[in-house]
Amino acid sequence: MPDVREIPHRSYEKADLAADLRWWDAANYLTIAQIYLQDNVLLREPLAVEHIKPRLLGHWGTSPGLSAIYAVLNRIIADTGTEWLYVTGPGHGGPALVANTYLEGTYSEIYPHISRDADGVRRLCRQFSTPGGIPSHVSVQTPGSIHEGGELGYALVHAAGAAYDHPDLVVACVVGDGEAETGPLAGSWKIPAFLNPARDGAVLPILHLNGAKIAGPTVLGRSTDAEISDYLGGQGWRPVFVEGTDPAAVFGDLRAAIVEAHRTIRAVQALARTDGAQPDDAQPDTGWPAIVLRTPKGWTGPKVVDGKKIEGTHWAHQVPLSGVRENPEHLEILEKWLRSYRPEELFDADGAVVEQISSLAPAGDLRLGATPYANGGRLLRPLRLPPIGNYALEIDEPGVVVHETTRVLGEFMRDIYRENSTPDGGGTFRLFCPDETTSNRLGAVFEETDRCWQLPTTDFDDGLSASGRVMEVLSEHLCQGWLEGYTLSGRHGLFATYEAFAMVSASMVVQHTKWLQHATSLPWREPVASLNILLTSTCWRNDHNGFSHQGPGLIDLVLPLAPDVVRVWLPPDSNTLLSIADHCFRSRDHVNVLVADKQPHLQYLTLDEANEQAAAGASIWPWAGTERAGIRSGDLSGVDAGAPDIVLAGAGDVPTQEILAAAQLLREWVPYLRTRVVNVLDLMALLPHADHPHGLPEDRFIELFTRDTDVVFAFHGYPRAVHQLLHGRTHPGRFHVRGFNEQGTTTTPFDMVVLNRMSRYHLVLEALARSRRAPEKGAELAEYCRAQLARHHDHVREHFEDLPEVRDWVWSPAH
Amino acid sequence: MPDVREIPHRSYEKADLAADLRWWDAANYLTIAQIYLQDNVLLREPLAVEHIKPRLLGHWGTSPGLSAIYAVLNRIIADTGTEWLYVTGPGHGGPALVANTYLEGTYSEIYPHISRDADGVRRLCRQFSTPGGIPSHVSVQTPGSIHEGGELGYALVHAAGAAYDHPDLVVACVVGDGEAETGPLAGSWKIPAFLNPARDGAVLPILHLNGAKIAGPTVLGRSTDAEISDYLGGQGWRPVFVEGTDPAAVFGDLRAAIVEAHRTIRAVQALARTDGAQPDDAQPDTGWPAIVLRTPKGWTGPKVVDGKKIEGTHWAHQVPLSGVRENPEHLEILEKWLRSYRPEELFDADGAVVEQISSLAPAGDLRLGATPYANGGRLLRPLRLPPIGNYALEIDEPGVVVHETTRVLGEFMRDIYRENSTPDGGGTFRLFCPDETTSNRLGAVFEETDRCWQLPTTDFDDGLSASGRVMEVLSEHLCQGWLEGYTLSGRHGLFATYEAFAMVSASMVVQHTKWLQHATSLPWREPVASLNILLTSTCWRNDHNGFSHQGPGLIDLVLPLAPDVVRVWLPPDSNTLLSIADHCFRSRDHVNVLVADKQPHLQYLTLDEANEQAAAGASIWPWAGTERAGIRSGDLSGVDAGAPDIVLAGAGDVPTQEILAAAQLLREWVPYLRTRVVNVLDLMALLPHADHPHGLPEDRFIELFTRDTDVVFAFHGYPRAVHQLLHGRTHPGRFHVRGFNEQGTTTTPFDMVVLNRMSRYHLVLEALARSRRAPEKGAELAEYCRAQLARHHDHVREHFEDLPEVRDWVWSPAH
Repeated sequence: MPDVREIPHRSYEKADLAADLRWWDAANYLTIAQIYLQDNVLLREPLAVEHIKPRLLGHWGTSPGLSAIYAVLNRIIADTGTEWLYVTGPGHGGPALVANTYLEGTYSEIYPHISRDADGVRRLCRQFSTPGGIPSHVSVQTPGSIHEGGELGYALVHAAGAAYDHPDLVVACVVGDGEAETGPLAGSWKIPAFLNPARDGAVLPILHLNGAKIAGPTVLGRSTDAEISDYLGGQGWRPVFVEGTDPAAVFGDLRAAIVEAHRTIRAVQALARTDGAQPDDAQPDTGWPAIVLRTPKGWTGPKVVDGKKIEGTHWAHQVPLSGVRENPEHLEILEKWLRSYRPEELFDADGAVVEQISSLAPAGDLRLGATPYANGGRLLRPLRLPPIGNYALEIDEPGVVVHETTRVLGEFMRDIYRENSTPDGGGTFRLFCPDETTSNRLGAVFEETDRCWQLPTTDFDDGLSASGRVMEVLSEHLCQGWLEGYTLSGRHGLFATYEAFAMVSASMVVQHTKWLQHATSLPWREPVASLNILLTSTCWRNDHNGFSHQGPGLIDLVLPLAPDVVRVWLPPDSNTLLSIADHCFRSRDHVNVLVADKQPHLQYLTLDEANEQAAAGASIWPWAGTERAGIRSGDLSGVDAGAPDIVLAGAGDVPTQEILAAAQLLREWVPYLRTRVVNVLDLMALLPHADHPHGLPEDRFIELFTRDTDVVFAFHGYPRAVHQLLHGRTHPGRFHVRGFNEQGTTTTPFDMVVLNRMSRYHLVLEALARSRRAPEKGAELAEYCRAQLARHHDHVREHFEDLPEVRDWVWSPAH
Repeated sequence: MPDVREIPHRSYEKADLAADLRWWDAANYLTIAQIYLQDNVLLREPLAVEHIKPRLLGHWGTSPGLSAIYAVLNRIIADTGTEWLYVTGPGHGGPALVANTYLEGTYSEIYPHISRDADGVRRLCRQFSTPGGIPSHVSVQTPGSIHEGGELGYALVHAAGAAYDHPDLVVACVVGDGEAETGPLAGSWKIPAFLNPARDGAVLPILHLNGAKIAGPTVLGRSTDAEISDYLGGQGWRPVFVEGTDPAAVFGDLRAAIVEAHRTIRAVQALARTDGAQPDDAQPDTGWPAIVLRTPKGWTGPKVVDGKKIEGTHWAHQVPLSGVRENPEHLEILEKWLRSYRPEELFDADGAVVEQISSLAPAGDLRLGATPYANGGRLLRPLRLPPIGNYALEIDEPGVVVHETTRVLGEFMRDIYRENSTPDGGGTFRLFCPDETTSNRLGAVFEETDRCWQLPTTDFDDGLSASGRVMEVLSEHLCQGWLEGYTLSGRHGLFATYEAFAMVSASMVVQHTKWLQHATSLPWREPVASLNILLTSTCWRNDHNGFSHQGPGLIDLVLPLAPDVVRVWLPPDSNTLLSIADHCFRSRDHVNVLVADKQPHLQYLTLDEANEQAAAGASIWPWAGTERAGIRSGDLSGVDAGAPDIVLAGAGDVPTQEILAAAQLLREWVPYLRTRVVNVLDLMALLPHADHPHGLPEDRFIELFTRDTDVVFAFHGYPRAVHQLLHGRTHPGRFHVRGFNEQGTTTTPFDMVVLNRMSRYHLVLEALARSRRAPEKGAELAEYCRAQLARHHDHVREHFEDLPEVRDWVWSPAH
């Protein structure tokens, strides 16, 4: 980290300012050219209608502000040699970021066909917002980006995620005043409570207020400086306001503000990194620096068109001159506007950006478009993973040991924390969880580290400190967004959440999946650690919390997303969870959804068996079925003697338990019914192989489920999710799926499976009804099951009148 | 509205304070009793282990604070006769709200078996967090609630939604400091920019800081008063701090603070409602009042247990004494704690709450548990809906007129605004939309009203005013949450959003569906207007915006939810959209998801036909198929002459168009192939009738789709969503569904359908492959289709090199 004194604090040299303004002119010129021009892109001849694209798309409004910040940052980076990352909240500023990365050379390095000459400029313009080209937003294709534009709200969480454990990095995060209206962004300002100056990098928010969104003003844009100062100040920031319409003045003020912010950041960090520094010393007394930049929307664009004010209004948001193909006056305004940047001086005879401009870019990887922090795979080191055998449960016999399944994951992560920490108090792994780490039985991590907390502590706090590295905040958006930024910048982690409330940040899962899907198609983007999401406190065992806590919908949400990215794992017990977690921590570029409840559950598999099943995706559990039992009854005419009479399949912890209990009932009552028990651990195994890389080949699928035997399937989530996966398989209509049917309340775990018709008794009744043959004593067993359900029904209805003993209503999973 | 002078501002009379503290004691006693006791609930004998529930569940921590506010509000309501609504953000405070509504009598009125006597108290306690009983959160069962606890973040949006257009109402909204960490809540503080004191009620936020969430401190709980004051002050609030541990002092300060807030609110409103008042007069100069209440977590509970500090720490969050069944010392502490409220003086000999306490409740519907604002169906009046014929498109021939489909809905809503406004500037209908009303072609509403905006305006603003009633804010959470509060308090509305970004508030859709599902099972909850969500700017036509804007996932999300609540409508054109919208605005207690794009689309049905199809759910479009055509070829052995050779089905605007184009190609090339075209408008019609009330009876399903003919199905969303619906139908494997396959980018609309293999050419190829017979010229047609696709492929790949004319790449929907 550079010494504070290395950060120059001198005034803007006139020549430097002039040069930076020319960079800005070039960026603005290229932005407009991308939006409008398909030819004559260097304006070497008079502008004519045929030079204009047939369809005008793109966003001018925010672009000049973004480019001004880029230009000023370039100088500061070049002056100081420090590492910066630029997160562009106003995703609509795509053409600006493309323009700047083109000017600095990174664009052509990554995309050689967009060369640094006239032909390259032409291609640059033609590809923009064009079929076969690039989107109008900052996207995965944009060099230097870890943040997709489009869905707004996540700029600051991504910025903070990238800053964690990157002590030398400063993340400049531009927040548009439109985005600032979203909930997730509004919730993101609490970074100062979580960012540790001793081991983390810094986030420098630049709230860019141009006053308008698509169709109207913004709340912060119309708020006073005093209001904004209070708003940010109250959350631990010390905002500096930069406002103006005169470019030179704004550049000067902006540079001074960023330099001063940079100095403050380094001073705070230096203090925190002094030997013997106390956490209380660590936080800046008056807040972390932030910048509020007020510049006109569509700055330097047309002021008035057809008598309507454009610059500074929402009319500048997208394409300020939309009639250029039809209206000669508009065309003339556009040409004047383009020529106002003097393109003939921006590009040399070959069409290359002149050296006076391109040389303003910082060197090599310090360029904002080249920083490895935005291509985290370049920084990624595999986690040091302790052998999972250290945490495995001893299993002598399946279905005997009862254990809170997620505990082993807590122990595993405790040691992952230890093995992957760095001497400066940082590390490469973090757990993110909304305030529920202990509740989710992952509390073993607190043996190794605390909750991260930069605000004051008290005597009665426990497991809480500035040096803590478990990230707890009551916001799924923050947890997930931080993890996204953390992994995209080269780190590893896991987000653990109550299953139902994973839906809060569901949209972020969709967008991150889209990001990874596109990223894997770009050779220059190195693979990053997967986004691992643990869904726990699941629907079946939120019996105590009730209906609002019961929802397995995230599974349905990820199923249709990119098959190369998404995986859904349903480990039935601790050892399978360990095996899957180990796999997920090693995997790259995936979104892994792991579903495992935290309550005491029966345990089944040894670690070896768990590893085998994890590799297979789905397996027969031979000890649970009876298909190899002899045949006594005589009613087998026409039945393939080698096939089971019925297949019982389970996916998930509670469903597996109910399927096993059903299998046991069948074993006990009708031992000569040939049953097979299959456990599905990798949900995507059910998809046809052509539709997902984990989809089982059809022959393997038939090995497990036979060709035409009926299958009674107990599933963790909504039953029709399984049906959608099975389309394309052999005879999918023979699958009879029970699962969560949106029947929930405050009740017992057993009542939950009864309400949703997935209890062992329901499963037995279904199995008997669907079996190839009616076994002896089958009718009695059915009678018994119906009686048990009737008894349960009476029991629950009467319960309120006559509260039973604990053993009756706190359901013993061992039955 | 009462005159300000009617609000007494005198000091708290000693006797009143004492009485209110006893109400509080009673509420706290009942809260603890609910958590712990199954018997001896009035403590008329010494407490013994058998009186303790077998499983201790519930949340004490936040409860005493909630009850203190309730007690103070009771007095203010009784004093002033004004209407208040109490929104409880800390949903974990369920037992407190149940206790208070029991004390005031509403609980027993609604649930007569929870009578106002010893037996009733016993039942009250036993039902809590018990199988067959009620959840530990504030829920739909709780009298006086419009807000479910559990998933945190939506208290303030619901409060604001309930305040809109209810000029006399004050909504006291308690925000817990845990909830305050969420994104949606943090984004909700901007109410002052949208609440109009002339026509709306008021929201009085009470930020209740007890400092801790489940397992640690909270950001705001550890922030200073100055920081919080700045934070809220910057957003248009004027917070007053009430802090303490001495109940009498806190009650006094809290009452003074609420009375003063009430006076301020009424003064602001009175000024705004004066004849000739200008919008600029309307907003309070120094902000709307807000209260910050700092009281200990678990206030009045055990201070220290087993040497560990409990009161005032996160250890008081749930059950502060968990060992009462095993540990006699804990049991003794519990008994002492319960007796500290002197229960023998709270209940009379019959076990009824003594009159000195119960008489403190306001009268009748003014009671917080009885207010009709929390049971909005009681206030609901049907919308005055103009005849949709006024907006219908003239259709002489299907597939000729091209129109931006959503425009007619804008015109319809314009007149709904007009017909349902009130003389005070209010009304009973609002449109909520994140800044995209015009972009979504709903801009006709601005002929009738403006965007709602209470901040300063400028000369160049358009369609923006304090009196405006279109709610635009760049937050799906706010839009949807406001609409939820608005409908739950008796109003009507629609939330229009870009399809992809509906996922942002997906979790709210799930929770609201759960609310309605449970509400419809409670006879005392009157039906409310449905939550209508328009998904527009859909995946198929976000070709210009790119992949981040392309996502139809909300459909998948709602499919498994309560069938009595959710509906998904896919109107293919304007007249069907009108018909469906009319239906949705009349419907009650549903969540209606309408999917209709805003771009120019072909139009097909007359209004009469649209109405017919809306009633039918799905229909044959006879003019598009050829099944009645004669049969020329000789290859019909074994084929039922009455059945079509192939069924072509479409659901959604773009899919319908592609299906029709495919049908046209088949008509032209292979006229003797008997095709049938089916359009599915009501997606739930595909579900078996037993699984959804809109599911078509099987015979009707077979009438449409035949029993065994193959069906080529073009679907708006992810294809497997259709497969999941079809499970249980006759031969579902014959359905070959094309839809959005998560292939997206910035491209042309036609390239989108090609990328996702749903183009007319793909559909024809599939139809030819699946048809009962190989028609003459079928091979040539297939060849033609493949050639067209190859040509398109080359075209797109070359496009970037050689930009074609506009007519080639801006796809003409007419083909």
